[in-house]
Amino acid sequence: MSDDIQIGTDGRLNHFISLEELPRELIEELLTTADSFIDFATRDTKKVPLLRGKTVVNLFFEPSTRTRTTFEIAAKRLSADVITMQSDGMSTTKGETILDTVSTLQAMHTDTFVVRHSFSGTADLIARHVPQHVHIINAGDGRYSHPTQALLDMLTIRQRKPNFNNLTVVIVGDVLHSRVARSEISALKKLGAGEIRIVSPRTLIPTGLEALGVRIFTDLDEGLKDADVIVMLRLQLERMEGQLIPSEREYYRYYGLTEERLKNAKPDVMVMHPGPINRGLEIASSVADGSHSVILSQVSNGVAVRMAVMSKIMGGFRQSG
Amino acid sequence: MSDDIQIGTDGRLNHFISLEELPRELIEELLTTADSFIDFATRDTKKVPLLRGKTVVNLFFEPSTRTRTTFEIAAKRLSADVITMQSDGMSTTKGETILDTVSTLQAMHTDTFVVRHSFSGTADLIARHVPQHVHIINAGDGRYSHPTQALLDMLTIRQRKPNFNNLTVVIVGDVLHSRVARSEISALKKLGAGEIRIVSPRTLIPTGLEALGVRIFTDLDEGLKDADVIVMLRLQLERMEGQLIPSEREYYRYYGLTEERLKNAKPDVMVMHPGPINRGLEIASSVADGSHSVILSQVSNGVAVRMAVMSKIMGGFRQSG
Amino acid sequence: MSDDIQIGTDGRLNHFISLEELPRELIEELLTTADSFIDFATRDTKKVPLLRGKTVVNLFFEPSTRTRTTFEIAAKRLSADVITMQSDGMSTTKGETILDTVSTLQAMHTDTFVVRHSFSGTADLIARHVPQHVHIINAGDGRYSHPTQALLDMLTIRQRKPNFNNLTVVIVGDVLHSRVARSEISALKKLGAGEIRIVSPRTLIPTGLEALGVRIFTDLDEGLKDADVIVMLRLQLERMEGQLIPSEREYYRYYGLTEERLKNAKPDVMVMHPGPINRGLEIASSVADGSHSVILSQVSNGVAVRMAVMSKIMGGFRQSG
Repeated sequence: MSDDIQIGTDGRLNHFISLEELPRELIEELLTTADSFIDFATRDTKKVPLLRGKTVVNLFFEPSTRTRTTFEIAAKRLSADVITMQSDGMSTTKGETILDTVSTLQAMHTDTFVVRHSFSGTADLIARHVPQHVHIINAGDGRYSHPTQALLDMLTIRQRKPNFNNLTVVIVGDVLHSRVARSEISALKKLGAGEIRIVSPRTLIPTGLEALGVRIFTDLDEGLKDADVIVMLRLQLERMEGQLIPSEREYYRYYGLTEERLKNAKPDVMVMHPGPINRGLEIASSVADGSHSVILSQVSNGVAVRMAVMSKIMGGFRQSG
Repeated sequence: MSDDIQIGTDGRLNHFISLEELPRELIEELLTTADSFIDFATRDTKKVPLLRGKTVVNLFFEPSTRTRTTFEIAAKRLSADVITMQSDGMSTTKGETILDTVSTLQAMHTDTFVVRHSFSGTADLIARHVPQHVHIINAGDGRYSHPTQALLDMLTIRQRKPNFNNLTVVIVGDVLHSRVARSEISALKKLGAGEIRIVSPRTLIPTGLEALGVRIFTDLDEGLKDADVIVMLRLQLERMEGQLIPSEREYYRYYGLTEERLKNAKPDVMVMHPGPINRGLEIASSVADGSHSVILSQVSNGVAVRMAVMSKIMGGFRQSG
Repeated sequence: MSDDIQIGTDGRLNHFISLEELPRELIEELLTTADSFIDFATRDTKKVPLLRGKTVVNLFFEPSTRTRTTFEIAAKRLSADVITMQSDGMSTTKGETILDTVSTLQAMHTDTFVVRHSFSGTADLIARHVPQHVHIINAGDGRYSHPTQALLDMLTIRQRKPNFNNLTVVIVGDVLHSRVARSEISALKKLGAGEIRIVSPRTLIPTGLEALGVRIFTDLDEGLKDADVIVMLRLQLERMEGQLIPSEREYYRYYGLTEERLKNAKPDVMVMHPGPINRGLEIASSVADGSHSVILSQVSNGVAVRMAVMSKIMGGFRQSG
């Protein structure tokens, strides 16, 4: 992944695959645009003609409700037409390759593909094969990246604690299976977060994680000390092979976020979770629904962030730098 | 269920969960609005911008073709955006509760949920948990209620026989498994129907049915005597547990509506059925397609009624009373 | 099938079921209209209000990605509302007949049904039962017909080689299971193609094929001699019962289109394929992606042709003849 894929020769944002190579100014500009769409969503008529006549294809090779719906709503509010294709009804089952599927859809003069796939690098692969007027947005690929999720989390933090330099952000949970975690770390570093911590059982920590410049804890109480932001990860039970955690009950006892544990953090700590939450597994119900939780705000921001990315990519954006 | 859920403190219709608690004037006003949408549907351009910029979520935890499609068409004709979620692709399979699913979707600033679920009371439960600007429409819950179906049936009757007081309405069939029957009885009583009869095999009559003020028959010929309106229920073969009916052939012999049997009713009797029909099981083909049948008119009215409910709820309605 | 079904008493095109009975002038007019939609698709705003307020129902009793998507995109670009119904979620599983399903949907005041079914003649059957203001478009029925595919292929040829009289067109492959082949032959004859050849293993040639006025070859090199256009058929592995071909490897050795074999044809030969392609089975990757291939152009033309058919049918067309 290098910036020449995401940013065209004319300085425009062409694809949105990963935050790692994007300049900080561009990320902040996307956040500012997203903020403007937040107010918009509470209006009586939540529709602008920005992308009228454009066609967005939701290409989900891996099932998803939340992310797919958010992209669909975002595209429709921008007046684009949306075509949704889920893996079960797709020609890849007839032996067609992913690139042939994309070429075919692109020949229908579609403008943007929102791609989710269980293999890391799929969105990048596709972006390298489409002509310049076709845009790719990564909606999650394997364990690699989920950049719009990271972006919406940054927006959620920035709305409440705009000065990233002073922040201690703690990411708790199943880092090994989480594409969210990786994108998150990358975005936090880009925006200059003061300290990034990972709290996880030893078996769920990928090798080489320290190289990313994060502090690693296996004890939750210790890791939460004076935290400004807590990002809980979803326990990806469906992706686990073998016995990586002793039992769900054990996991909750050591790594579940309870009200008691929350007291280790700063009094105004924010609790985030990408959803869907497993109540009583990684997070107590009272914390998920409590005053520190910004989980539903993340969802609202998710629509706004996707509107921002789509309108930049399809509506045209010229990088000033 | 009490009216304070469906009708807000400002007198507006907020949710549409059940007809039982709604005032008769409101039901009649909805029917009148629906009537105005009937003419509209035969126009060349069947689209009004009433709900432009609104987002309707079809939340079907139980599969349905007809009802889902009717709501989708109704919403699109009102220019709303429609998001459809069927149970198989939903996060509830990932262990998320229904209320979390709804909270998440509502955080995307969606306006109305059209909910179908196999558990009675689901729509009501959801309505009690959403903020006031979010609306719930019950599209069928368990054996409890299917209020838009009852409303479209009332419209179909009123178009042909506006004076309910004189009418003898006969509901025939599987009352035990039918949410249609219960909603129907409630609506008919509300509109002052002269006499309501139930004809059903003894095994398919729920206990306590007499308390609703209906006359119960087990003999079809007797029950049809001088009927103005016949409402055939669909035999819910897929919902039956155990041997409630001896055999399909036996059922048809005793409870199938044939041309011969129809002669017991008044000469201008109307034959209704919520569909999909089982030809030769609860109704003879010649009756379903015959001159007394208003089955397809019910379908057309179904779109109009759903447009009426959605436009009242989202477009704003102030109860005069 | 006779023209009175497709063309109404007023000379309008009412349904689009099969090319066989349509006058040549009408086919050419559709091609010319489609051509005008080609330029349109490369515009910034690919949307015209031609069918605003119309409802198109995609009624797919057989799964399809490409065809369904193309129709959906075509309808949306014409500003129609689209309702998609795939077989798995349909009432036919509840025992409702196809005609009842269609009657019900038509009672919702829908305007056009795009029908795909695995039984030959389904679209025709439906067209004979709907009222005159409802239109049926055949999106592929059994082994019988796939007229929009044939139409888009004719458009693809005409754009490059407008003089059909001089053309030698070679159709290669699984003619037995291909509805494309049959529609193709019919369209080519209608437009006066010079010579039509079929190349196929003996086991995949339907009886009576010669009667259609085509030359039959079992040797690919021989059949390709001086060809202007090659239409490769998809090997319908999923439809084959029994051992009609010895093995995939054998098939490719004798009937796969390779660069070597292509040399038998004219230097400016066009290679077509309805997709999805089986690379290395019926066609070499280098040929599919090579300079003679017009496969992606066929896809683009597919959207344009479906827009042309829909706008003629719903927007109104008066046959001059």
